[in-house]
Amino acid sequence: MRVTGTIEEVRQWMAPPRAAGQRIGLVPTMGALHVGHVSLIEEAVKRCEVVVVSLFVNPTQFGPEEDFNKYPRPFEEDLAICQRHGVDVVFTPSPSEMYPRENLTWVNVTGITEPLCGRSRPGHFRGVTTVCTKLFNIVGPDVAFFGQKDAQQATVIRRMVADLNMPLEIVVCPTFRQGDGLAVSSRNQYLSAQQRKDATAIYKALQEGRRMIEAGAVDPILVCERVEAVIRRVPAMQIEYVSLVDPETLQPVQRLDGAVLIAVAARLGPARLIDNILVDSRSS
Amino acid sequence: MRVTGTIEEVRQWMAPPRAAGQRIGLVPTMGALHVGHVSLIEEAVKRCEVVVVSLFVNPTQFGPEEDFNKYPRPFEEDLAICQRHGVDVVFTPSPSEMYPRENLTWVNVTGITEPLCGRSRPGHFRGVTTVCTKLFNIVGPDVAFFGQKDAQQATVIRRMVADLNMPLEIVVCPTFRQGDGLAVSSRNQYLSAQQRKDATAIYKALQEGRRMIEAGAVDPILVCERVEAVIRRVPAMQIEYVSLVDPETLQPVQRLDGAVLIAVAARLGPARLIDNILVDSRSS
Repeated sequence: MRVTGTIEEVRQWMAPPRAAGQRIGLVPTMGALHVGHVSLIEEAVKRCEVVVVSLFVNPTQFGPEEDFNKYPRPFEEDLAICQRHGVDVVFTPSPSEMYPRENLTWVNVTGITEPLCGRSRPGHFRGVTTVCTKLFNIVGPDVAFFGQKDAQQATVIRRMVADLNMPLEIVVCPTFRQGDGLAVSSRNQYLSAQQRKDATAIYKALQEGRRMIEAGAVDPILVCERVEAVIRRVPAMQIEYVSLVDPETLQPVQRLDGAVLIAVAARLGPARLIDNILVDSRSS
Repeated sequence: MRVTGTIEEVRQWMAPPRAAGQRIGLVPTMGALHVGHVSLIEEAVKRCEVVVVSLFVNPTQFGPEEDFNKYPRPFEEDLAICQRHGVDVVFTPSPSEMYPRENLTWVNVTGITEPLCGRSRPGHFRGVTTVCTKLFNIVGPDVAFFGQKDAQQATVIRRMVADLNMPLEIVVCPTFRQGDGLAVSSRNQYLSAQQRKDATAIYKALQEGRRMIEAGAVDPILVCERVEAVIRRVPAMQIEYVSLVDPETLQPVQRLDGAVLIAVAARLGPARLIDNILVDSRSS
């Protein structure tokens, strides 16, 4: 496994496999790797001949009040995980390598970045789409891997790739959950033991929503209210949104008669937690 | 020479030369090719093993009141010019091939797109940078060629490529001028015979600016006033701007002690004309 912090070197290393027609996979991460990331890496190793993992806590996707400084950076552990799972190249640039001068150029996906997390995190998706564009241009992958846990991010990235004709495939892998259903996230480590238990309310609530839809509910407002009620049983949980939206447009659905994404964001102590499930109400 | 209107086909055609390590050059144009474009094509043929010319009147870079509909589209003549000058592939997509659905994703260069032409053409550069990103992603060139006549566009594209780590080189070729100094432009054909004569005032004025700087002028305001005065000798000419700016930042210079771009935009009858010269005031 080779590790570099420079754009020039990662470009040099990618040239021979590209010229040889080998399939290059990229797993873009902010580090603090967990089993969710590992499932992305394993999928990449399965599908690609060369696997690159980027570790970069991207400053431009954090708001001024957000957790950029305290975001975990367990560098050595991350490298060990990559090594263990067959990663070929780790790209771990510094902020100044990625943004060597004032960044004037932004990739901006409009519309679908406004609801859900876009409402409370202005500029977040602009940072994500810009840094992903940069990583795609630096590494030149044939395929890049994202997690369904960040459902809006996955939809936004897919739309960006389609709109801008980026020459790569986007693969979205299922959310990885703990035994009690909590979606694995680097931010879970901000939680105390009690908060960690309370956090399971989110997945319980999502499952309750799924049950209602599968039992034939057609009114998204009723489902939404029930999901919120389950989360509210934990008094410490502050709901940011519970939304039933179209998985492509991310606009609220008026009636449950097709694929629907139930998406939740909530604050619990120091952590902002998000989760979602995709339900096909036609199959109910 | 091969001609296609589909993204899929141009991608297929580019794969073998790319795999063979051949250098691919792209000349992005809106068609209505003239000797200025030909100089770009010749430079591309000189430097690259495969030359692609795109002919696409890009709707997203025109304002609602601008000349999108009347912009000349002499398709057969354009193909003949490409053929004659050794172009390998002409990519001539329809608007619906390039924008098959509502376009949600924009590449936006901030700051340097605001002065000069940005002031009177809001959204213009956003359209240019977005379509160039799409063309770069479709063709995958090693190098793309632009004209110095559109100085702000060239600076904006260069900055976009640097900021987003796009894996290609940008070559900017000198402005091509008629014998009387008028910068060649597709929009010159909107001019009547009298207007065509009057239009030469712009280059005369730019040369007057150069003479002042080479004679030691240090105050950009004085130079600006003289340039404007020369243009105003043609009563029909409506000046949009005359600016002395830093060639990289496009911000007005306070004192003439380095490289400076003298940039002009003016309306003359049905045409909006732009021109510029680069002067190094240190060499005076």
